[in-house]
Amino acid sequence: MTPLPPAAPDARDLLARRQRLLGPAYRLFYDQPLHPVRGEGVWLFDADGRRYLDAYNNVASVGHGHPRVVQAIAAQAARLNTHTRYLHDTVLDCAERLLATLPAEVDQVMFTCTGSEANDLALRIARAATGAQGLIVTRWAYHGVTESTAEASPSLGAGMQLGERVRTVDLPFQAPQRAGEPVPDVATAGAAFARSVQAAIDDLALHGMKPAALLIDGVLSSDGVWTDPAGFLAPAVQAMRAAGGLYIADEVQAGFCRTGDAFWGFARHGSRTVPLVPDIVTMGKPMGNGHPVAAVALRRDVLAPFAARCRYFNTFGGNPVAMAAALAVLDVLQDEGLQARAARLGSDLRASLAELGRRHACAGAVRGAGLFIGFDLVQPQDRHSPAPDIARQVVNRMRELGVLVSATGEAASTLKIRPPLVFEPAHAQQLVQMLDQALAEAMR
Amino acid sequence: MTPLPPAAPDARDLLARRQRLLGPAYRLFYDQPLHPVRGEGVWLFDADGRRYLDAYNNVASVGHGHPRVVQAIAAQAARLNTHTRYLHDTVLDCAERLLATLPAEVDQVMFTCTGSEANDLALRIARAATGAQGLIVTRWAYHGVTESTAEASPSLGAGMQLGERVRTVDLPFQAPQRAGEPVPDVATAGAAFARSVQAAIDDLALHGMKPAALLIDGVLSSDGVWTDPAGFLAPAVQAMRAAGGLYIADEVQAGFCRTGDAFWGFARHGSRTVPLVPDIVTMGKPMGNGHPVAAVALRRDVLAPFAARCRYFNTFGGNPVAMAAALAVLDVLQDEGLQARAARLGSDLRASLAELGRRHACAGAVRGAGLFIGFDLVQPQDRHSPAPDIARQVVNRMRELGVLVSATGEAASTLKIRPPLVFEPAHAQQLVQMLDQALAEAMR
Repeated sequence: MTPLPPAAPDARDLLARRQRLLGPAYRLFYDQPLHPVRGEGVWLFDADGRRYLDAYNNVASVGHGHPRVVQAIAAQAARLNTHTRYLHDTVLDCAERLLATLPAEVDQVMFTCTGSEANDLALRIARAATGAQGLIVTRWAYHGVTESTAEASPSLGAGMQLGERVRTVDLPFQAPQRAGEPVPDVATAGAAFARSVQAAIDDLALHGMKPAALLIDGVLSSDGVWTDPAGFLAPAVQAMRAAGGLYIADEVQAGFCRTGDAFWGFARHGSRTVPLVPDIVTMGKPMGNGHPVAAVALRRDVLAPFAARCRYFNTFGGNPVAMAAALAVLDVLQDEGLQARAARLGSDLRASLAELGRRHACAGAVRGAGLFIGFDLVQPQDRHSPAPDIARQVVNRMRELGVLVSATGEAASTLKIRPPLVFEPAHAQQLVQMLDQALAEAMR
Repeated sequence: MTPLPPAAPDARDLLARRQRLLGPAYRLFYDQPLHPVRGEGVWLFDADGRRYLDAYNNVASVGHGHPRVVQAIAAQAARLNTHTRYLHDTVLDCAERLLATLPAEVDQVMFTCTGSEANDLALRIARAATGAQGLIVTRWAYHGVTESTAEASPSLGAGMQLGERVRTVDLPFQAPQRAGEPVPDVATAGAAFARSVQAAIDDLALHGMKPAALLIDGVLSSDGVWTDPAGFLAPAVQAMRAAGGLYIADEVQAGFCRTGDAFWGFARHGSRTVPLVPDIVTMGKPMGNGHPVAAVALRRDVLAPFAARCRYFNTFGGNPVAMAAALAVLDVLQDEGLQARAARLGSDLRASLAELGRRHACAGAVRGAGLFIGFDLVQPQDRHSPAPDIARQVVNRMRELGVLVSATGEAASTLKIRPPLVFEPAHAQQLVQMLDQALAEAMR
């Protein structure tokens, strides 16, 4: 692999200022950090005018700078921006539109500004509803950066101490998977995951605690992107409910048509006859296409004990500008048919990536749903051990080749491919071509 | 007092939808809730075209819909909105501009979306820096709605259970104060408050805990607005530091020129020769004039232990649009001389309000700094007991008279007057006239 050129002078200057002004807790992507100055649709343009195909940013879900969203924000910001202690119709319109996408049992919405705040509020509500404190999350989960969500986010790093109330559970699969490796059937995977959850419930009981909730990312992104076999989450939810706890669907990553087959990621784990109905659904990232807006949707009986105890007010949450952004995103998702596009294009893209898997010794399994895709990279010697070194090399080389992707999972060996939903077949083709080249170079 | 007319049909419809869609944890202002549809400067306009003088909303600090802020948001949203994992200059420019307003020891900034997130992050950092868990807040404090900040916010209501790690301290004053009642001298008040803080530190020790921080709102807004005697906070900060804990200045309400005498509310508690220097400063509400943007500024040695343990990323925090909004607000504050205006107009306004205190039996002391004003209402019989009933009546009558104010403090008997900083003398005059009328009517 060609060594990267030293950072351009402007990048060196920005790097030095970052270190000085923002401090050591901040991280940048890429060995040579990107310095974008403009975005349009699936493209980011850097300070030198070079363009990058964005196959990473799920926040700019309807495309960078989508004119309808920008216009909605600009118009409402000029007209009025207040808060939910006054009456305003946009917050109600937005709640109504969101609830129309959810199971009928989920019938109220509370607005926050970030996914962290949404998960944090969901935990407060779940603890009030159950009178219990225990929380079960997956082994390499990420749920936020507030104290309460960070203590349930092992993926924040080995230095991140988990909370005494938190238990982690293994998934019934492990990365990396080999290319073409069959997924376990849903009965086996579902039973195994339910057993893990039951064991965590039992361990909480040994420590005198009852479970308040099972909190699960609908695509298990930080765990390495696990969407199949569809349905495997359901028995674990049953186990949690049998123990008196709730099921919180963390849809911050999975929601808003990302998975193609449904508006929400959890939906694939239910069926038409036996739908999977969360007690609480949290959402965020793509909700305002970059504008800070997030929410908690839930059953009114779940909310009631919390509301009887204290009020809720979030200064910016649900304000007219945030709601204008969210409504515009909902309009675009519908008018541009982005759920169907995510399903169609995602399926084709996964097939093309699987094809790469047959030609590169470091390529493992391709997973995902719609346009949320995980692509395991493996050590070519055994095709079974995770290859974080190769993943890092490929991610950096892809950036050089003008395509933005990232890596995820406990070993950081799973490529995370998660473009704006306005991705087109030609973009997918470019992504696959560049990945083909980067994988080939990684094997030299 | 004339009975209020029944809510207009559109308001009744919105109320019913709110109850159904947002649920019971949300609260509205006023017996007849306001339904604003447009804002401009110090004015809000309702659905019927009636205008209200805004003497309440400190978020729209440079005025509703300020064209420079709206334009900055619109232009940047159209150009690029990404995140802090790429290089971008606006986040660095904003950090630099904020640090220029702070003591030199406070030299790094981290960005969040809300004041709750800022306080929550400050607590995580303080706990990592000190290895301690204990937290001391004032008796009727408000610091946020995340689990960790809500458990330190007694003003959220009697049902809000405080955290085991949290202790509250009484202020060296108590509302209501009588009109013209002299404030204690700074030596007496400072020593009394430091004794309260020391007692809380001692109680934490009895429970095997050390203090991580003293967390104090720079104007003690929810406690009833306590800004004098300037300097009284300093001995308590010394006591906390002697016990190994940090001083976190919660400037979400007090910051950004609101107090007139300085850019930050805590500054009045130091002097030119012995400045009061917080270890951590949190900020939010007015920072983006309604756009969700907030931050934590701190000493780099305070941040280091946290950063050594885990990284920090906030998806929307510090993004280019949020930073464009914050930079525009900083520009407007400076170019329109709003700090000096807050000082001058606030002083005149407090004098006029004190004048009302000499003419109405229910009027108590007027407190505050700049354009953050508390006005105690008292029972006319003894002029000493809090009068929440009168406060409620006055707040609602003021809304009828076209002026927006609120009430605060443990007894909800202190009028909270906190207009956009672009308030002008004519607006102050209208506020005082209407308040004169409302107070007179309340005495009939």
